[in-house]
Amino acid sequence: MRLRNVKGAKNIIEKSKLVVDDYQNYQGQYKKIFNNNNPIHLEIGTGKGKFIINMAKKYPNINFIGIEKYDSVLVRALEKEDYIENLRFIRMDATYIDDIFKNEIDTIYLNFSDPWPKERHKHRRLTDSVFLKKYDKLFKDKKHIIMKTDNRKLFEYSIIEFTNYGYKIKEISLNLYDDDITENVATEYEEKFHNKGFPIYKIEITK
Amino acid sequence: MRLRNVKGAKNIIEKSKLVVDDYQNYQGQYKKIFNNNNPIHLEIGTGKGKFIINMAKKYPNINFIGIEKYDSVLVRALEKEDYIENLRFIRMDATYIDDIFKNEIDTIYLNFSDPWPKERHKHRRLTDSVFLKKYDKLFKDKKHIIMKTDNRKLFEYSIIEFTNYGYKIKEISLNLYDDDITENVATEYEEKFHNKGFPIYKIEITK
Repeated sequence: MRLRNVKGAKNIIEKSKLVVDDYQNYQGQYKKIFNNNNPIHLEIGTGKGKFIINMAKKYPNINFIGIEKYDSVLVRALEKEDYIENLRFIRMDATYIDDIFKNEIDTIYLNFSDPWPKERHKHRRLTDSVFLKKYDKLFKDKKHIIMKTDNRKLFEYSIIEFTNYGYKIKEISLNLYDDDITENVATEYEEKFHNKGFPIYKIEITK
Repeated sequence: MRLRNVKGAKNIIEKSKLVVDDYQNYQGQYKKIFNNNNPIHLEIGTGKGKFIINMAKKYPNINFIGIEKYDSVLVRALEKEDYIENLRFIRMDATYIDDIFKNEIDTIYLNFSDPWPKERHKHRRLTDSVFLKKYDKLFKDKKHIIMKTDNRKLFEYSIIEFTNYGYKIKEISLNLYDDDITENVATEYEEKFHNKGFPIYKIEITK
């Protein structure tokens, strides 16, 4: 994603009721933020927020947390909504995700993650086993990841990483928009790339 | 594949030096047919034979056996070549494959197999676990399957079947002709569908 510096982004993020500032204080206790025992779903790399905002509206009995590294991107999500009860954002780098959550996540979404195309950067891919190991600590019971991407090479790599790591494939689509997608919630990126005619890949895995 | 009745096919097959007639007598001893200890690779559903004939020419130190159910298709392979030392064909139904071979195959090729699109026919797909179980008995040491198809649904199904059955993915391509394919040997079907602009899927698995 091309990053622009957004004037006042930091200030908007600090003031937003959707952003968890003191996120380091909740490890293992995120349900306190939502004040209920509903399942918590996590999107890592939430971008401009379209996916997770629409998911939160569609599924009011699930709590959603979106993680985004960049102020200038996260601010675009905050411009969309002032407040949604079952949604929060955290401005942080996914590298430290296993310091933030513990045995409390039901589902992780990885949508159109950075493909890090160079071989020497492969361990930075959010589907690399380095990250899968971190995710292990986050999940409450069953491990459950849903990934979408338009990047063929990232998808091929991810299928191999997932299955080598012991995940079972629950569902896979190599051309999502040619399937029945009545339940699909799209990201900004997804719409753009689908409209350009690229296939969208999706995989759902459990362990 | 559309099947035509080919006049005299039975007769051509009976006379061909490339066809093993008494194939039921060789279980566990197929190396006797080739008179050497080279690895044996098996293509199940060999069609008009282009792939396996070119493989046999390209890799003279590997023995190849192509299995085909239909006389009218196999005869097209026999029209291409009179004799190749490291190649044989068998006219048989893959359903009985575990009665024919035993602990002697190194690699199985599944090229553009019948997708059997209906849910109720899924156990007829050559990548269904019903067949994977049969293949287990065929392999000499390590199990090794290489599959190509243009059929997205069959490919999605096969990835799930393979990995659920304990196979590890060695390589996968969701668009073979966009990769480096200098080593690729194409089938008749493959050329036709690639030329129509369809992606060709490939997966290589081991256990």
